[in-house]
Amino acid sequence: MYRTDRAGEIRATDIDKTVTLAGWVARRRDHGGVEFIDLRDASGVVQVVFREGAAAETAHELRNEFCVRVTGVVSKRPEGNENPELPTGDVEVVADQLTVLSQAAPLPLPIDDHVDVGEEVRLRHRYLDLRRSGPTNAMRLRSEANRIARNLLHDEGFIEIETPTLTRSTPEGARDFLVPVRLQPGTWYALPQSPQLFKQLLMVSGFERYYQIARCYRDEDFRADRQPEFTQLDIEASFVTESDVMALGEQVVTALWRELAGHAIEGPIPSLTWHDAMNRYGSDKPDLRFGVELVDLSQYLTGTEFRVFAQVLSGGGYVGAVVMPGGASQTRKQLDGWQDWAKARGARGLAYVILDETTGEPRGPVAKNLSEQHLSGLAEAVGAKPGDAVFFAADLDRLSAQELLGAARLEIGKRRGLINEDEWAFCWIVDAPMFGKTDDGWTSLHHPFTAPNAEWADRFTEDPEAALAYAYDIVCNGNEIGGGSIRIHDAGMQQRVFDVLGIDESEAADKFGFLLEAFQYGPPPHGGIAFGWDRICSLLTGSDSIREVIAFPKSRGGHDPLTGAPTPITVQQRREAGVDAKPEKAQPTA
Amino acid sequence: MYRTDRAGEIRATDIDKTVTLAGWVARRRDHGGVEFIDLRDASGVVQVVFREGAAAETAHELRNEFCVRVTGVVSKRPEGNENPELPTGDVEVVADQLTVLSQAAPLPLPIDDHVDVGEEVRLRHRYLDLRRSGPTNAMRLRSEANRIARNLLHDEGFIEIETPTLTRSTPEGARDFLVPVRLQPGTWYALPQSPQLFKQLLMVSGFERYYQIARCYRDEDFRADRQPEFTQLDIEASFVTESDVMALGEQVVTALWRELAGHAIEGPIPSLTWHDAMNRYGSDKPDLRFGVELVDLSQYLTGTEFRVFAQVLSGGGYVGAVVMPGGASQTRKQLDGWQDWAKARGARGLAYVILDETTGEPRGPVAKNLSEQHLSGLAEAVGAKPGDAVFFAADLDRLSAQELLGAARLEIGKRRGLINEDEWAFCWIVDAPMFGKTDDGWTSLHHPFTAPNAEWADRFTEDPEAALAYAYDIVCNGNEIGGGSIRIHDAGMQQRVFDVLGIDESEAADKFGFLLEAFQYGPPPHGGIAFGWDRICSLLTGSDSIREVIAFPKSRGGHDPLTGAPTPITVQQRREAGVDAKPEKAQPTA
Repeated sequence: MYRTDRAGEIRATDIDKTVTLAGWVARRRDHGGVEFIDLRDASGVVQVVFREGAAAETAHELRNEFCVRVTGVVSKRPEGNENPELPTGDVEVVADQLTVLSQAAPLPLPIDDHVDVGEEVRLRHRYLDLRRSGPTNAMRLRSEANRIARNLLHDEGFIEIETPTLTRSTPEGARDFLVPVRLQPGTWYALPQSPQLFKQLLMVSGFERYYQIARCYRDEDFRADRQPEFTQLDIEASFVTESDVMALGEQVVTALWRELAGHAIEGPIPSLTWHDAMNRYGSDKPDLRFGVELVDLSQYLTGTEFRVFAQVLSGGGYVGAVVMPGGASQTRKQLDGWQDWAKARGARGLAYVILDETTGEPRGPVAKNLSEQHLSGLAEAVGAKPGDAVFFAADLDRLSAQELLGAARLEIGKRRGLINEDEWAFCWIVDAPMFGKTDDGWTSLHHPFTAPNAEWADRFTEDPEAALAYAYDIVCNGNEIGGGSIRIHDAGMQQRVFDVLGIDESEAADKFGFLLEAFQYGPPPHGGIAFGWDRICSLLTGSDSIREVIAFPKSRGGHDPLTGAPTPITVQQRREAGVDAKPEKAQPTA
Repeated sequence: MYRTDRAGEIRATDIDKTVTLAGWVARRRDHGGVEFIDLRDASGVVQVVFREGAAAETAHELRNEFCVRVTGVVSKRPEGNENPELPTGDVEVVADQLTVLSQAAPLPLPIDDHVDVGEEVRLRHRYLDLRRSGPTNAMRLRSEANRIARNLLHDEGFIEIETPTLTRSTPEGARDFLVPVRLQPGTWYALPQSPQLFKQLLMVSGFERYYQIARCYRDEDFRADRQPEFTQLDIEASFVTESDVMALGEQVVTALWRELAGHAIEGPIPSLTWHDAMNRYGSDKPDLRFGVELVDLSQYLTGTEFRVFAQVLSGGGYVGAVVMPGGASQTRKQLDGWQDWAKARGARGLAYVILDETTGEPRGPVAKNLSEQHLSGLAEAVGAKPGDAVFFAADLDRLSAQELLGAARLEIGKRRGLINEDEWAFCWIVDAPMFGKTDDGWTSLHHPFTAPNAEWADRFTEDPEAALAYAYDIVCNGNEIGGGSIRIHDAGMQQRVFDVLGIDESEAADKFGFLLEAFQYGPPPHGGIAFGWDRICSLLTGSDSIREVIAFPKSRGGHDPLTGAPTPITVQQRREAGVDAKPEKAQPTA
């Protein structure tokens, strides 16, 4: 037996009890021959004292992170030595037995939350990094998040079903990870980008309420905060409407934030249409912790002689603006910095007007090009005050201009300290377009199984650009934390969507014929949602990166500094796996 | 809104209530112009009646598995028409509204548990197969099993942690599935055969109590009932002894069988040493639902003149027997059948002696070769009665002979109806050998991280064949349903194990240097267990195959008849994934 009690649970009520504890040496110090160690286990820390004898001598040799077992008597700490910051701070264990269970070499990183260590070192020694209280607590929170969601969904009648991860390559917008199949040389499995097709099949099966905390895989470039494997809470239900799924999603989010962030979400979470979100915030995942809305100046600037704006407006484009409160006080260097910022985002620059802090007089390069009339009404048109700056974007492509202004808005929020970091602002984004334009046609904005809304059900093919979907995303503080849709359950309608996407019947049959075939057999109306579990957990732990809530994340390029994965494979592995085989027979029909 | 109530939940207390239901047409029939349908949803079935009007006309056109919505009034069934076998059998819904939500083409397989359809057809249309109550209930049971295990482990202080599935190839006895890495061309991830290394790292991290219902991958040949991806309930704990882990495992199994099989396991589950299991049952996963134990005749037959036995015994080999009760009544053809059976298992045959049903006189080919003395005492030596048959196995390799007898024992149990199919017989197999002999050395019987038991800790290198491990498997009705061990937490001892296995320091560092390195930093004593979740669920559902408890299983060869996976990949996919790239740089150090 390694222990009778857990270190962090010893209390004054245990005084005079003999206890055996096991854990790690968090700190050792001696005062006049008396050895003190802070003994840490998963439950917390308790002070252990070795006053004399062999145990004290051994204790003197302990170094940080040795794993030890001690036996001693729980005692009241001497008056004045209590530590009110520790739950065990009233007591100490006066020990007379000490066993070193294992030693620790000098540590490559200190087990201390206050020391900043490079991420590469942390991940290289993740097993030590995870001993720090921050990462430990992140993992514990994540475990609790799973539990809260599962309990809620169970109570709502959902059942958990595992779907395959060795499956068929299907195009869902990103590249598939591929796996060669030794037993059928020349053929490959794909790792799923999501359980989308399988969960729809489960609805055809009549399960009605399915969920899974599912591992998903996308072979994307490692921009931003992406991982090649990630987790989503995946939910699907039959005989539901958009509002049913949104209500359920709201229950999940509300329970998580209540239990894990101590935050009461006052429902219902507000809904914004996708177009409103773009028009007002220049983003389909707006951060609503602050105002600073975009203003459409296309009408206001009609007839402008400023060539840049005039060209755009005559082409039917968009000119808009966003106000930076107090932005007039920026230095020339700061204003130039905005130009670099915009160029780094692929824009040509960021036109601006400064409103004089006392007179309100518009100044700056753009001001010179605007007429007296357009200048005099500008402040009112954009809702700016003296001392503010006004940033402009103009583009034939309305969304591009709005996205630039939306990004500027976020920068303004950060630079002007407009964002209350303690606030939680949720919203739903609904009525998203079904399709987005590409160079050679249309693409699904969500995925090709998303149903048009009632208004567009019969005529989405007539005006794909305007057609709206029963799609909904949930956003928290500017992060998309979940999204879903009502699905198409009619093979004919599904084919019409494929037609818009330029997927002909044969290609559709080849890629997901099995789903279309399933839809021949009484599919129920259904819809669902998937939550980005890593992102939700990182928000709940206050982390900047999802890597902080993944036990063993990859660093950039998909490299794991701990195991060294990925690695070259041997010639034998390559041969055995059939990597170089040609398929022996025609592709099996789906 | 699609419905107000669920079909299977309508009761006599709902009489006169207007309800809207949605579900599938399980059966339609008409009696004199009145249409009856059995409406099925996930909750059950209710009878719906259309007496007249447009709804009745539409109802007449319904075919099986149409998905429909109906509105009507709950009514008492006419006297004599109640169906006591249905929970809803006292009532029917007299409907006046009917909407066809989707139609169903003629079904490739009937939605009926009593019809036997080939597995290929079932898997090809798994979405329909899963509408049958057997498969539906199997999925529901599995969801409940997850829930029971998670709740229990949560209450015991375990936390759930996800480990990576895109990781480094490590040799654990089977081939890895491999994944090419586009961002580091020429390098590959491996899918994990188990979370073994990661769960040990989590113990080094101080989590103390970890679990995960984990997807695992083994690229094995599809003998028996294997799937390329499978699930295990994976558990690891620190500061535990073998008996701690076994007690926990017993809690899990006890809870599952109590809740899902209505069976009270009377603990503690008996333990057998591995050697006892081999000696008595010829198996390390003995089916204890019946007796029929093996008998070692090596002593008894000393001095025999029967050449086959004498050669084996003089070489230090083993001769043993197993009794087939009533086996003397077998026909010559049946007895010959045993020879074919043995040959199919790779043995040369199965020697036997028949004991005459009345006189007890030994007869048969082997009897002729045995001395009078050996014959006369045989029945007593093996515990046989007149009318029994005695099967023999002799081999220089004791285990081979015992395994043959063990397999014969199982056959005897089946053929003689000795197995009570309603019984549950559990046992632990403990004290397994650390190593097994191979042609060129030693292999780990469990895995190379398994600790020697206390008796062998200091001397396992001296006699690897005899060395025993802190390893434990749990067996149910002849199926290994879980297994684990206390792990080595000392880098020096780990290296000595590698030495026995012929893995030198450089190879060890290359393959799992990161684990050995982690063990430099105060690793705690730890151990764990993993349950074969698919097998456990298949036992609990009374299924022969784990395919019955997997939503979308693969058939033989790893083929999925539903999606058609695996498939060839395109030239572009191959190029993008970097399948043919040579690694650009030396392998990253682990």
